[in-house]
Amino acid sequence: MGRVTERRKVVRIRDGVVSARPDTLVAEEPLEIRLNGKPLAITMRTPGDDFPLAAGFLVSEGVLAAASDLLNIVYCAGATGEGGSNTYNVVDVRTAPGVTMPDITLERNVYTTSSCGLCGKASLDAVRTTARWPIADTPPLRIEPELLASLPDRLRAAQRVFDRTGGLHAAALFSEDGELLDVREDVGRHNAVDKLVGRALQNGELPLSRTILLVSGRASFELAQKAVMAGIPVLAAVSAPSSLAVDLAAESGLTLVGFLRGSSMNVYAGEDRITLRTAAAQG
Amino acid sequence: MGRVTERRKVVRIRDGVVSARPDTLVAEEPLEIRLNGKPLAITMRTPGDDFPLAAGFLVSEGVLAAASDLLNIVYCAGATGEGGSNTYNVVDVRTAPGVTMPDITLERNVYTTSSCGLCGKASLDAVRTTARWPIADTPPLRIEPELLASLPDRLRAAQRVFDRTGGLHAAALFSEDGELLDVREDVGRHNAVDKLVGRALQNGELPLSRTILLVSGRASFELAQKAVMAGIPVLAAVSAPSSLAVDLAAESGLTLVGFLRGSSMNVYAGEDRITLRTAAAQG
Repeated sequence: MGRVTERRKVVRIRDGVVSARPDTLVAEEPLEIRLNGKPLAITMRTPGDDFPLAAGFLVSEGVLAAASDLLNIVYCAGATGEGGSNTYNVVDVRTAPGVTMPDITLERNVYTTSSCGLCGKASLDAVRTTARWPIADTPPLRIEPELLASLPDRLRAAQRVFDRTGGLHAAALFSEDGELLDVREDVGRHNAVDKLVGRALQNGELPLSRTILLVSGRASFELAQKAVMAGIPVLAAVSAPSSLAVDLAAESGLTLVGFLRGSSMNVYAGEDRITLRTAAAQG
Repeated sequence: MGRVTERRKVVRIRDGVVSARPDTLVAEEPLEIRLNGKPLAITMRTPGDDFPLAAGFLVSEGVLAAASDLLNIVYCAGATGEGGSNTYNVVDVRTAPGVTMPDITLERNVYTTSSCGLCGKASLDAVRTTARWPIADTPPLRIEPELLASLPDRLRAAQRVFDRTGGLHAAALFSEDGELLDVREDVGRHNAVDKLVGRALQNGELPLSRTILLVSGRASFELAQKAVMAGIPVLAAVSAPSSLAVDLAAESGLTLVGFLRGSSMNVYAGEDRITLRTAAAQG
C-alpha cells in the first residue's frame, strides 16, 4: 500500500561523467483480480487504488454497472509474500445477488470467442452488445475547443508522481465545464482509466454522461472501449488514436479527440459535440 | 495484410480554424494466437509480421526456444469477415513433436498461478524457472556509453510509420558493434519486441546473446521479461523503467539502461557491461 514509487540505486552517465545515487522509480506490481473467488485477470499496475481498479476493470468488462452490483472488495488474506505478510496483490470482488457472471473467456482484457470469427468487426459487436447504456448525454454536451485545449495543462498540474519518475501515465475526468473531477496515475494507462471509472462506480456516479475523459499519450481501442462502457461521451488524448479506436468511437457515438496540444486538436469522431464557429468552419 | 496504416476523416482545429481532411492513422486490430488449435491469447496489434509476432510471444511464454520447435504457423482459414473473406486476425502455431505444452494458465502475458501466492517475488520466480537459458554472453559484452547514446537516432531514422501517424512504438535489435539488425513498429511496444524475437527464432538466432534491445518509451517488467526469455543481455529504453523491471534485471543479470537521451543515460542494473572510464568514475 502506498508503494506508488520505490527507490533503487542508479549509475548516472552525463557527458561521460559517472555518478552513483538513489533514484525514484514508479512502482509496478502484478494485481490478480478475482471475481467471487475465481481468478479472472492479472494486470501489471502501480499499487494504490486497487479496489477502484478492480471495480473499474469489471465495469469495462460489462460485469458491474452500479454501486449496488458490488457487495464488497477484499484483499485476499492468503496472498503472502516473504515472512507470511499480505502482499496486497490479490483482490476478490464479490458481487451482489442477481449480478450476471460473464459466460465468456476474458483474456488480455478483450473477449475471446470460441468461434473462429474474431476480427475488428466482431470486437466492435462484442462491445456494443455488452454496453449497459448508450452514450446518452441529454441535452447533448457542447464543448468549446478552448475548453478542451485548457485540459492538458490542468492534468499536468495535478500529476505529481510523473515529475519524480517520468514513468507514469495519467487519466483525468473533467466536468463539461472543465472542472477537474478526478485524476489517477499508473504504469498502465488502462489501469489509470479503470481506477477513475471504479471510483465513480463506488460513488454511484455511473454512467458518466456529463464528463470528459483525458488521457496522456495515445488513444487505443481499449481506452475507447472503457470510455464507452462507462458512458463517457468525450475521450481526448494528447497523442494519436488508432484506427480501431476511431471506428469504435464512430459506431458508439463517442467524441474522440487526438493530438490535443496547445490550441490545436484533431477530432476523429463525434464532432457534433465540439462547438465549431460558423465563420471558421469553411477552412 | 500490409494494413499498417489506415485513412480516416479528421476535423482539424488549429487556432480556431477548422478544416476537414483525411488523416493517416496507425492500424490496430486484434490478433488471436492459437497453440496447436487451442486459443491462447489475444493481442491488439498493428497488422503485419503476424507469424513472427506469434512465434515471439511463445518464446516469451517459454513454449518455443528454437526454430526446430516450430512446425509451422498458419492463418486460420475459418476466420471470416464480412463477405466471407479471411480477416487474417487468427493465427495457429503448430509445434514440432516433443515440444512441451504449457500447463499453466496464460492471462495478460503473465502467469496465473492457482495458488494464492502471486506477488512480485512469485512472478520473478516464474520467469527464472521458465527461462530456457541464462543470459550467457561469453566473452561478456562490453559496450561504450557513446555507442549506446548513438542508438536512439539510428532507431528514429529507421522508423517510417511513426513519422506519418505519431502512433507507433518501436523496438530495434542492434549488434554489440551498434549495427542495426532489425526494427519493428507496433501500437503495442510488447508486440514490437515479440516481432523481433519471433523473427530471430525463425532464423535460428536464439539466444540473442550478442545483441542490444532498444525500445521507444518506457521499460516495463513485461519488456524486461521478454529480453530475458530471448537471452538478450542489454535492454535500453528512451524513458523510465519501472521498479519491477529493475528488480528482474538485477536478478537475471540483464543490463538495464533508461532515460537514454543525448549523451546521458541511467544504468539500473548490470553496469559491468558498460565501459565506464576510471578517471570519470569518481563522480
